[in-house]
Amino acid sequence: MKRARLCFLLAASFLCHIAAGQSVTSQQLPGQGQYVLLIHGGAGTILRSKMTSGKEKVYREALEAALKAGYAKIKDGQPALEAVQAAIRIMEDNPLFNAGKGAVFTHGGRNELDAAIMDGNTRKAGAVTGVTTIKNPIDAARAVMERSEHVMLSGKGAEQFAKQCGLTIVRPKYFYTEERWQGLQKAIRDEAPKTKVGHRQQQPGTGFPDYKFGTVGAVALDRNGNLAAGTSTGGMTNKRFGRIGDSPVIGAGTYASNKTAAVSCTGWGEYFIRNVAAYDLSALMEYKSMPVKEAGDAVITKIGSSGGNGGLIALDRNGNAAMPFNTAGMYRAAITKDGKITIFLYND
Amino acid sequence: MKRARLCFLLAASFLCHIAAGQSVTSQQLPGQGQYVLLIHGGAGTILRSKMTSGKEKVYREALEAALKAGYAKIKDGQPALEAVQAAIRIMEDNPLFNAGKGAVFTHGGRNELDAAIMDGNTRKAGAVTGVTTIKNPIDAARAVMERSEHVMLSGKGAEQFAKQCGLTIVRPKYFYTEERWQGLQKAIRDEAPKTKVGHRQQQPGTGFPDYKFGTVGAVALDRNGNLAAGTSTGGMTNKRFGRIGDSPVIGAGTYASNKTAAVSCTGWGEYFIRNVAAYDLSALMEYKSMPVKEAGDAVITKIGSSGGNGGLIALDRNGNAAMPFNTAGMYRAAITKDGKITIFLYND
Repeated sequence: MKRARLCFLLAASFLCHIAAGQSVTSQQLPGQGQYVLLIHGGAGTILRSKMTSGKEKVYREALEAALKAGYAKIKDGQPALEAVQAAIRIMEDNPLFNAGKGAVFTHGGRNELDAAIMDGNTRKAGAVTGVTTIKNPIDAARAVMERSEHVMLSGKGAEQFAKQCGLTIVRPKYFYTEERWQGLQKAIRDEAPKTKVGHRQQQPGTGFPDYKFGTVGAVALDRNGNLAAGTSTGGMTNKRFGRIGDSPVIGAGTYASNKTAAVSCTGWGEYFIRNVAAYDLSALMEYKSMPVKEAGDAVITKIGSSGGNGGLIALDRNGNAAMPFNTAGMYRAAITKDGKITIFLYND
Repeated sequence: MKRARLCFLLAASFLCHIAAGQSVTSQQLPGQGQYVLLIHGGAGTILRSKMTSGKEKVYREALEAALKAGYAKIKDGQPALEAVQAAIRIMEDNPLFNAGKGAVFTHGGRNELDAAIMDGNTRKAGAVTGVTTIKNPIDAARAVMERSEHVMLSGKGAEQFAKQCGLTIVRPKYFYTEERWQGLQKAIRDEAPKTKVGHRQQQPGTGFPDYKFGTVGAVALDRNGNLAAGTSTGGMTNKRFGRIGDSPVIGAGTYASNKTAAVSCTGWGEYFIRNVAAYDLSALMEYKSMPVKEAGDAVITKIGSSGGNGGLIALDRNGNAAMPFNTAGMYRAAITKDGKITIFLYND
């Protein structure tokens, strides 16, 4: 009898855990209709109880710096693309985030970076994947969009292209940070018995270690009413086999159309790819006339239902914003056309 | 005056050329509601006037062989995934098509292959990109889907994974064919003055040389009502910088959902990525209640409007098929549950 009760409690706790991971946090934002730039610095186990005031301050400052860099472009009358790129560059250069300088390590001890950018006006897009020597992958994504006839370039070829474009090239060791290196060592130690070829055993829906989080992204609306979206990431700690996540996949992690919204996602990339998450938000707006917030919630609900987790930021042409997620928290910030900044970290 | 008339005629001819390239061919198919497998072998300048009866026969036989290989699985009660994989393997092994053995060459004289597969029932997916030693990339895509926790693996990592899975590994020179090598030499000779970094000058909407065509794909419906889609390609002749096209991008070149349809695209990949073409077809069915044929036409019309060209095959859960394209022709074939085969090559 006691054993039955224990089993019941364990099962209930397990189900609550799933439910907690799946419920969508989507607050009412104070400046609807006024937003010009939203950014995220990744979703994951971001709990107030685990945060020190010092750490929280550092994150808030980093988000604010990125937001201000992007906002300066908007205020200056420059295109949304410029604002997205400026905000992401700041986050790429800050080791706090899993993008650029702070990229996580692959199983092989490398830093392989991905980024994408899309122009909502022309619906042109550019992306790079698996690059190891480009200081700011978001710059490379933009160069692919504007200076090649392609959308997606990979590996050494993408690096060669970036070099030809005159972008800043660094040695791979530029991306070494002690914290990320220790993160890889921990991830390797934590690996569960392998049931699939070279992969961890993982119960769908039970949540996933934060190995894959910290991706950064930005969506912007400029004075001409044009939207743009961008995403940059170091991918998943301990990733193998040249894994590509959703960030550089147009339609999955990044999408923008002036008809609907600019979207940047973060989270368990495989689920965002299979759900074609960023474009699904756009399709729900275009084909079902859903407002951006409702569409964002619907997409994250689908991600949760299929066993995945993460979040997204989305901005429509009228300055309405959505920042839903189903993880414990998501680093996210928004600024209105009057320069009013709001920063959120947790799910409250 | 004569010069003005000449200019007018030239302009008219140019506009007709654009119009011809943009108009969608989408015939009424005789076995609607009965189809179980559709395949394509690429879209492009496939003109009756340029085809010899010998060459036409070879293509028809190749398409029929692929169709029969896939149909055998369906008839045997096996999953749609098996049928898709079997049909694509046959085309990958045939040097006629730009996939597997017949893959085109990159600018650097390599054969870099991409493939993707998606299960409409589970909406799981797998893809590989930039692989040079995997005999049948479609097998690798399926292994990624079923034997890893990832969706998309690239380059050497993907090859290492395929090897660990016991797939057939070949030397890169296995993919050498004299015809494709000569195709690369021609493409290099044909290059227009470079205006972008290392790329050809290209007027949008004027049509594109057939350097990027010949991709193969299959969509199937099994006895349990499950759909699946797959695509495999050698990419674009003379491609550079590790370019990734739409084929391995879930939502762009490949998508399947039992709720809507299984889709495989072929054509100018960049436009299919930016239009999130395969998933857009699904979204039009799901959110706008469009029949598969209407949705297929809408997607190819959008591709054309944005300056791209190509085609797609799509099959819904009720055995209704769509095979629209806006190029001069598309190698395509279909089989009904009773084994009735239809093969089309041209736009009539």
